[in-house]
Amino acid sequence: MGAGDDEFRWIRVAAALVQGTEAPASLDRPGAIAEQRTRAKSVGARLLVAEDDGYPSQLRSIPAPPPFLFLRGELRGEDALAVALVGSRQATAYGIGTAERLAEDLAACGVTVVSGFARGIDTAAHRGALRGGGRTVAVLGSGVDVIYPPENRRLVDQVLKAGALLSQFPMGTPPLQHHFPLRNRTIAGMSLGTVVVEAAEQSGALITAGHAGELGREVFAVPGNINSATSRGAHRLIQDGAKLVQGWDDVIAELPEVWRRCLKEPGATRAASPPGGDEGRLLAFLSTEPMHIERLIEQSNLPSGRAAALLLTLELRGWVRQLPGQMYVQTRPM
Amino acid sequence: MGAGDDEFRWIRVAAALVQGTEAPASLDRPGAIAEQRTRAKSVGARLLVAEDDGYPSQLRSIPAPPPFLFLRGELRGEDALAVALVGSRQATAYGIGTAERLAEDLAACGVTVVSGFARGIDTAAHRGALRGGGRTVAVLGSGVDVIYPPENRRLVDQVLKAGALLSQFPMGTPPLQHHFPLRNRTIAGMSLGTVVVEAAEQSGALITAGHAGELGREVFAVPGNINSATSRGAHRLIQDGAKLVQGWDDVIAELPEVWRRCLKEPGATRAASPPGGDEGRLLAFLSTEPMHIERLIEQSNLPSGRAAALLLTLELRGWVRQLPGQMYVQTRPM
Repeated sequence: MGAGDDEFRWIRVAAALVQGTEAPASLDRPGAIAEQRTRAKSVGARLLVAEDDGYPSQLRSIPAPPPFLFLRGELRGEDALAVALVGSRQATAYGIGTAERLAEDLAACGVTVVSGFARGIDTAAHRGALRGGGRTVAVLGSGVDVIYPPENRRLVDQVLKAGALLSQFPMGTPPLQHHFPLRNRTIAGMSLGTVVVEAAEQSGALITAGHAGELGREVFAVPGNINSATSRGAHRLIQDGAKLVQGWDDVIAELPEVWRRCLKEPGATRAASPPGGDEGRLLAFLSTEPMHIERLIEQSNLPSGRAAALLLTLELRGWVRQLPGQMYVQTRPM
Repeated sequence: MGAGDDEFRWIRVAAALVQGTEAPASLDRPGAIAEQRTRAKSVGARLLVAEDDGYPSQLRSIPAPPPFLFLRGELRGEDALAVALVGSRQATAYGIGTAERLAEDLAACGVTVVSGFARGIDTAAHRGALRGGGRTVAVLGSGVDVIYPPENRRLVDQVLKAGALLSQFPMGTPPLQHHFPLRNRTIAGMSLGTVVVEAAEQSGALITAGHAGELGREVFAVPGNINSATSRGAHRLIQDGAKLVQGWDDVIAELPEVWRRCLKEPGATRAASPPGGDEGRLLAFLSTEPMHIERLIEQSNLPSGRAAALLLTLELRGWVRQLPGQMYVQTRPM
């Protein structure tokens, strides 16, 4: 162990671990802290306690903030302009597309997108922020050295380059079910507002939104098809007073800090500019109702090879999505 | 012309016609009223003035109600439990399905569904009410003897058997653009609340909702996919305070008069009961994301002929909708 301040910080961890209900039995023993140090070092994780400058300022201000955080990557001052974007693991294509686009637009506007690194909406939120060339923070329900779900391993590297992985749990902690409500409170606590994209009636995203409300932060929800089970939670939130979100502008309209910053950032308009030329022509025939490619070719009067190429470009740029059976839908308003 | 009371009523019509900005030039001449009488008689239309018992009571209570109405069919006392269901002419399959289902469920619950007989959502609302075995009133922007759109001619007979056609315009009046805002105020005025199903940002349905709000009536809106232009108006209404509607129960929750009535009506539960057996099994595989019939057959393990038959039944009962390319979607939650 080191000396002075550093030692004090690690003792804080040890005390929290032993006293907290979250203490894994394995940490309440000699050598556990040394092992934590070794594990942290091996993945380049830093320890932050609430008194540290690097500890997220909004999170510090909530009642009973996490006594320590492990951090991989980097937190910057600008990450105080954070918005949480959360939702269902069992997301629909609509939810995924919407989360990616919202995150992209918010990130391009200088907002740090915070989410929980879970399957579905959370992953889409991190990916969208990266696509927008902005910053993103993943708050885990496991140790920062335990990556779950496994298919997100490659995403870790991208997040580390453009933000951070954070956890209030000791190194090596597995992603247990009862960690997620605590993690969700941290997500809400470090963010100016929380946007729920898709959520079933009983879901972790609603818990995060509930924390945001209790902490006096803004709560937002994206509506959807009323027949979609994964939109029912979002609709319930709106019925209970959450702001209905149709796009990034509805989010920043409620967050003056972000709004002022955004006006200075040219990136915001970049993300919103619709495609022109033949791409735009083709897109004008599409809507949220699936249309078969043959009908699209017929209506647009474009050669079929050309139409297929344009559709691929539009899909890569996030404007359309291909459904099974050569059907296409538009995924964002022009 | 007749004598006494009857003559007085027709004189009211004549006066309103001549004084009003709406007076067609052709009526400001001798013989016009006699022609109105003849036209009314030929389609079995009755004239109602605001003092008449048959004049809709909610409509009578608004400032400057229409001085007279022409009525085809029948208005009953129970039609005071009226809810307006309005929306876009350019509706999507989602909007049409939602309007039909909401109208069906409300009608089965004893609500009279009021709408404007226009293409799209309005027509779906009338059809849904008829399917629910309930009552419906069509308020026209033309004379009650001028049926527009022409494809709704057959629907007239069905509406007349289960409700009424109403108009504040003289017999023979064509469906002119500037009539619709006045007609929309009548729709809102005779209803306890107005539900907007799909509406673009500039649309007549929003005018109807605006009137409902000004008249102190409830305003409801059904959310949808945020990429759908026809949901943007509904979303704007919710942002401005309209109640978000996921189903008929969200509407009646705000209308105690209806709610009390509904508890006595067994029909309400009928409309909501989900299909069982193989129908229910098949439906469980469907969602709001389109699925190809082959995949559905594969997943459900049902013989293909059986699956096709079940899908047809489910579609007729309003649970699923077929999209182009043998794709199926669920159109109401189970």
